[in-house]
Amino acid sequence: MQKKNKGVVIVYTGNGKGKTTAALGMALRAAGHGKKTLIVQFIKNFQNYGELKFVKKYNCGIEIKSMGKGYVKIKGDKFPFEEHVKAAKQALKFAKDKILSKKYHIIVLDEINIALEKKLLSLQEVIKLIQQKPPDLHLVLTGRNAPKKLIQLADLVSEVEEIKHPYKKGILAQKGIEY
Amino acid sequence: MQKKNKGVVIVYTGNGKGKTTAALGMALRAAGHGKKTLIVQFIKNFQNYGELKFVKKYNCGIEIKSMGKGYVKIKGDKFPFEEHVKAAKQALKFAKDKILSKKYHIIVLDEINIALEKKLLSLQEVIKLIQQKPPDLHLVLTGRNAPKKLIQLADLVSEVEEIKHPYKKGILAQKGIEY
Repeated sequence: MQKKNKGVVIVYTGNGKGKTTAALGMALRAAGHGKKTLIVQFIKNFQNYGELKFVKKYNCGIEIKSMGKGYVKIKGDKFPFEEHVKAAKQALKFAKDKILSKKYHIIVLDEINIALEKKLLSLQEVIKLIQQKPPDLHLVLTGRNAPKKLIQLADLVSEVEEIKHPYKKGILAQKGIEY
Repeated sequence: MQKKNKGVVIVYTGNGKGKTTAALGMALRAAGHGKKTLIVQFIKNFQNYGELKFVKKYNCGIEIKSMGKGYVKIKGDKFPFEEHVKAAKQALKFAKDKILSKKYHIIVLDEINIALEKKLLSLQEVIKLIQQKPPDLHLVLTGRNAPKKLIQLADLVSEVEEIKHPYKKGILAQKGIEY
């Protein structure tokens, strides 16, 4: 017999907008049911994100921990590669402790697919962590270019494809929409 | 010169999970910046959604108005077609008043693409409404099978493709994840 409350492993990947925002929406929905969500942000370190401001304002059971050093090896990247690796390993360790704590309904590993793509983490250690998760916990992994093995392992995978993007029409990133 | 705060028309379509949740995440992010979002739900009428419970609990500038009569022409549909049409027309009228009120940063027309597909609304009336929107308002339209003309008109289009879905493995819809 199928166990009804078995936690699922969800992957949001693809090059389109809506992956992190979908994870945020899941957190909001879970909070409506009084359930706790933790979002651990890999890569990202921008402290002014709307979601960070939101969780500071409203004590609604959503926690966000930004642990990245910014995008890797792009213009404006101020950190040596080893610093990115260190930050990603710390974020994974933090996530592992929280995953094993059984205190959350959902844990989101935001942009972890990018950390894998940039070789900040090994696929093996991430898969090992997924396999250790408590049965009831929903684990969400986001970021473009999710590795095939992760997709095979996941229960639910959505690929968000970019059909049109306003950057290409010259519209800049906007507060309350993009961040 | 490009006007920085021009509101964009966003379409979330495709057969995968994450369209409405992405819109919810946008609302959360906007709320973090102190900006107001209205979500008008076409088709849907389930009163126990996590997002409805959330906005009742937290006075955070997100409003949700569920105005549908449920999914159309499927098993369990208790309403004659005309009732669905009436509900969709009322929802569009409500949305129009709110769009023209200039009180919101984001307005989400949730599942309106389904209302178009099921011929509850005409594409022409929806396009007319989009064309009437105030320049600063962000308008988000969700639902699978968005019409081509809507995609042409939109600034940002993300297609969420289902790669894997746990229903197919026999896992039931879960509180705090699916609704």
